[in-house]
Amino acid sequence: MSVITIVGAGMMGSAMAFPARAKGHEVRLVGTPLDREIIDQARQTGRHITLKRQLPEGVKYYQIEGLEEALRGADLLIGGVSSMGVDWFSQSVIPRVPAGLPILSVTKGMIADGAGEFISYPELYERRHPGSGIAFCAIGGPCTSYELADRDQTQVCFCGPDLALLRRLKAMLSADWYHISLSTDVRGVECAVALKNAYALGVTLAVGLSEKLDGRLHYNSQAGLFGQSVREMRRILPLFGGSEDNLYLGAGDLYVTVFGGRTRMIGTLLGKGVPIEEARKELAGITLESLVIAGRTAEAVRAAIQEGRAAESDFPLLLYIDRLLRGESGEGIPWQDFEQEMGG
Amino acid sequence: MSVITIVGAGMMGSAMAFPARAKGHEVRLVGTPLDREIIDQARQTGRHITLKRQLPEGVKYYQIEGLEEALRGADLLIGGVSSMGVDWFSQSVIPRVPAGLPILSVTKGMIADGAGEFISYPELYERRHPGSGIAFCAIGGPCTSYELADRDQTQVCFCGPDLALLRRLKAMLSADWYHISLSTDVRGVECAVALKNAYALGVTLAVGLSEKLDGRLHYNSQAGLFGQSVREMRRILPLFGGSEDNLYLGAGDLYVTVFGGRTRMIGTLLGKGVPIEEARKELAGITLESLVIAGRTAEAVRAAIQEGRAAESDFPLLLYIDRLLRGESGEGIPWQDFEQEMGG
Repeated sequence: MSVITIVGAGMMGSAMAFPARAKGHEVRLVGTPLDREIIDQARQTGRHITLKRQLPEGVKYYQIEGLEEALRGADLLIGGVSSMGVDWFSQSVIPRVPAGLPILSVTKGMIADGAGEFISYPELYERRHPGSGIAFCAIGGPCTSYELADRDQTQVCFCGPDLALLRRLKAMLSADWYHISLSTDVRGVECAVALKNAYALGVTLAVGLSEKLDGRLHYNSQAGLFGQSVREMRRILPLFGGSEDNLYLGAGDLYVTVFGGRTRMIGTLLGKGVPIEEARKELAGITLESLVIAGRTAEAVRAAIQEGRAAESDFPLLLYIDRLLRGESGEGIPWQDFEQEMGG
Repeated sequence: MSVITIVGAGMMGSAMAFPARAKGHEVRLVGTPLDREIIDQARQTGRHITLKRQLPEGVKYYQIEGLEEALRGADLLIGGVSSMGVDWFSQSVIPRVPAGLPILSVTKGMIADGAGEFISYPELYERRHPGSGIAFCAIGGPCTSYELADRDQTQVCFCGPDLALLRRLKAMLSADWYHISLSTDVRGVECAVALKNAYALGVTLAVGLSEKLDGRLHYNSQAGLFGQSVREMRRILPLFGGSEDNLYLGAGDLYVTVFGGRTRMIGTLLGKGVPIEEARKELAGITLESLVIAGRTAEAVRAAIQEGRAAESDFPLLLYIDRLLRGESGEGIPWQDFEQEMGG
């Protein structure tokens, strides 16, 4: 039995308590300053108010003031914040983490490092905390928190710098319903995962398009955009130093993201021709993390084009999504730009 | 204006009349001996009885006895038969086709050539009719006949030996809603398209699994199988001489196939644990082309494994589907075999 401390009691961080408790580990769930009510309620009733599930028996709950106590003797720290919480996590949590305690982060996304590089959060943490003695790892792959909590069959990928450590983490958390691949290609795994945010907007444009047309769902158009997404994702991975082998993670995650949630809602609105500012208003109060990640991805690809490392004509869908997100629209989906010739 | 003759008046062959007539071409639709009623009805009422659509104005209808008349002066022959009709098409139609008349086939699938090679239908036709002077081309990509007939946005790929000819065919058939990429990698395009038949069975296993569980749809499991499908498809393409660049066609086609139709029905039954023979009985009368193609694909991959050109552990999902199709079952989806390690 090990001690697993989860910092960040949002839906995904908290859902990690399910595989952790299934293995009989001691699980300590620490709320961020934004999670006070979640922790209060869970402590009283065992119920997670946004995940809408009873958390597993035996989880110990902490407000952020109890962080140090919760870290004492821990064997693994799971970073449960969203990409909006990365700076807080880096400034307020990592400095208190003892050397040798690995961090496994559920945070999805990539970020520009300021020097023109498009990097993953584990890499960002490593650069901000050099010599910390902490191994920064992360989880990629298609996994909704609800279904993880329901112990549905789920396949993910743990990535980090050290395969031996990843094997230990897998042994700690794998279950009959939680299947874990391992990869030392942190950049590739995280890039594949980030890409699905942008392209889920792209595929769901077709949902909006057909809802506007006749209210029914049409599939040729969705499939066309899905195929174009896979084509562009495959080109983007090596552009930022990730292996194409990770494409399966991006494609699987794209598949699940298209089916529901906030990204589908905004993609559908954009596909109907609603301008981005209006769509934002319609979805007021909903955190649109995917818009931030999509914008960052497009920015990184545009930078690569400017540097001559990529051709604009290779990314017509991403650049169209980017134009929509910047408030330019009206031209319609650039279907003709997806037509390509291969061979000679 | 050109003359386009379509032989095979099934749903997809007939749907090709829509882009062809949209460009103002003379369109001659010739039924196979199995299409007599379709042709009779369409000639009388303009309605296609299985496509359940009015065909475009001005299409000329022929029973098979009128084949020679229908071929006279034609600029393009569209082969509209399903894979079940390939032998008939090869024996009864191709010998009557004049040299110089290109054939563009909608038939999906691959076939073993008897000498251990896994080849596309255009290649099969070429081998059976050497020196015919006919350019054998084909259409791949995600396209349902209903939506093509409804002039929904659709993206396909024309493949064939000669890029200049492909460009001419594209100019003849492209429309604002029918977008055509071109490729001389016939094997790769057709292999990507065939693969989706096998893997659509794979992804929809999860649909059956969750219907059995609680009647709701779950997505982590579908996305896991979708990702694994993309991973295995990417490995299979080069195994048979196709470029990985065609993966986007397979992924897009997989996406659309998972959503509906016969393949989803049988995959769902298999996922519920219904043995294949019982599933066949339940779907009696429904042509399960995808089962044939899935079986052939698995056979070709197993042959490659035996030849030492591939590793069994690289295709756990395909080989599991194949076991289900051979009547072996009960073991459940081999989730653990999908867990892989990358890096060192």
